Amino acid sequence: MSEAYVHGYHARENQRLKDQAGTLVELLHADTSYPPGSLVLEAGCGVGSQTVTLAQRSPAAQFTSIDVSADSVAQAKRASDAAGLTNVRFQRADIFALPFAPESFDHVFVCFVLEHLSHPSDALGVLKNMLKPGGSMTVIEGDHGSAYFHPDSSAARNAIQCLIELQRWAGGNALIGRQLYPLMVDAGLDTVRVSPRMVYADSSRPGMVDGFTRKTFTAMIEGVRESAIEAGITGPEDFDRGIRDLHRTAEADGVFCYTFFKGVGTKRP
Amino acid sequence: MSEAYVHGYHARENQRLKDQAGTLVELLHADTSYPPGSLVLEAGCGVGSQTVTLAQRSPAAQFTSIDVSADSVAQAKRASDAAGLTNVRFQRADIFALPFAPESFDHVFVCFVLEHLSHPSDALGVLKNMLKPGGSMTVIEGDHGSAYFHPDSSAARNAIQCLIELQRWAGGNALIGRQLYPLMVDAGLDTVRVSPRMVYADSSRPGMVDGFTRKTFTAMIEGVRESAIEAGITGPEDFDRGIRDLHRTAEADGVFCYTFFKGVGTKRP
Repeated sequence: MSEAYVHGYHARENQRLKDQAGTLVELLHADTSYPPGSLVLEAGCGVGSQTVTLAQRSPAAQFTSIDVSADSVAQAKRASDAAGLTNVRFQRADIFALPFAPESFDHVFVCFVLEHLSHPSDALGVLKNMLKPGGSMTVIEGDHGSAYFHPDSSAARNAIQCLIELQRWAGGNALIGRQLYPLMVDAGLDTVRVSPRMVYADSSRPGMVDGFTRKTFTAMIEGVRESAIEAGITGPEDFDRGIRDLHRTAEADGVFCYTFFKGVGTKRP
Repeated sequence: MSEAYVHGYHARENQRLKDQAGTLVELLHADTSYPPGSLVLEAGCGVGSQTVTLAQRSPAAQFTSIDVSADSVAQAKRASDAAGLTNVRFQRADIFALPFAPESFDHVFVCFVLEHLSHPSDALGVLKNMLKPGGSMTVIEGDHGSAYFHPDSSAARNAIQCLIELQRWAGGNALIGRQLYPLMVDAGLDTVRVSPRMVYADSSRPGMVDGFTRKTFTAMIEGVRESAIEAGITGPEDFDRGIRDLHRTAEADGVFCYTFFKGVGTKRP
């Protein structure tokens, strides 16, 4: 996992990840819970945005949450401690050099990680090896090509395209959500089922407008402003117009759509 | 409703509309039913693809289904008769010259109609006038800008864009789904609630792949081949490559996504 994390590791980005996790908890995680005593590997826990939700929903499962960034792991541990969790063990580790024996876990959970890897299939293969036969793997990814909105705006679409390009240059794939099904099938997982989780925000859903359109998605695009300008793929005026147009979709007559994909597969017993 | 119907009125198109209706019945209509005795206006019934579903789901409601095309109305009546329905009255009528008194109906239902109108707001206003105070209006529309797929293909995206352009030139808007909320609010409807209905097709859902990806969406795009070539917005080779790439998304490792939008609002009592 040597790729650069395109979103950076700043305080504002961490707040964005927390806002995102709060808004999306039901949509993404309501149908994930693990039986008492099961051993779950969370691969790529980041600052623990999903960890707290996961561990609270399955209080009698034992989680091992890893991330390649020591700083992120430290923050995730603080978030977990603050939530009073006692069923999570944190460890700095690289998905491609895992310090665990094969078939050590009943379940693997991977959320917003594959999009940053240049070899997501290899990662799924490695993680499948960590599963006991009959175990399950859950994968959640977004897809920035699923974003559309009203009023439509080419400036806003171009600003989003900046992130897609930067992520591609860093070895990742911001359009990976739509590919979850073939990726999981290719990794040899069985009974793969992918379901889309669509975010729809209009002003009758103010929590989604504020929590997702503004504080999650638009904030995420804003986060690559400097990198995109430095890379020469946009100029300050064009980019800022795009951001204004994204904010415009959060007004009373605006609409914003985005889709996450959640896949669950099993390892043949 | 003087606009040209961009999809044409041919036998193949009618089959496409029936395939579409079969695949999407649950997704679009499962939550629509009308109480016994209520009077429902279906505006723009076309060949009756939705009429049969609607009337079967609300057997004790009385439907008045209109369309601007006499041929379509005749076909819709045949479909209704073949299904043994006795609670639908068909009539040729123009939305902008309705032969009914104001406040004649308890409910109005409009599906895949606004996308073809150059003044959808005016149509909603006229239809709202048909509603008794306290009555409801249900509107369903697609959004061709919501289509994305794996493998991604610029040729496929360009072929879709041909339909979007032709529909725009004919006075319509193939991206209207995302605008339902502001359109319904602008029409003065109350308690407007829009919900997206996303179609997700991968090979674990063969019915959706065949019924939607191939026989509904790709067939719809194929249906504008000649018009698009005549209009000079594509060439035969480019267009056919786009169609091949759309069919490619229906193969074992392909994925296709599309979203319909359903809005329900009420007229203030």
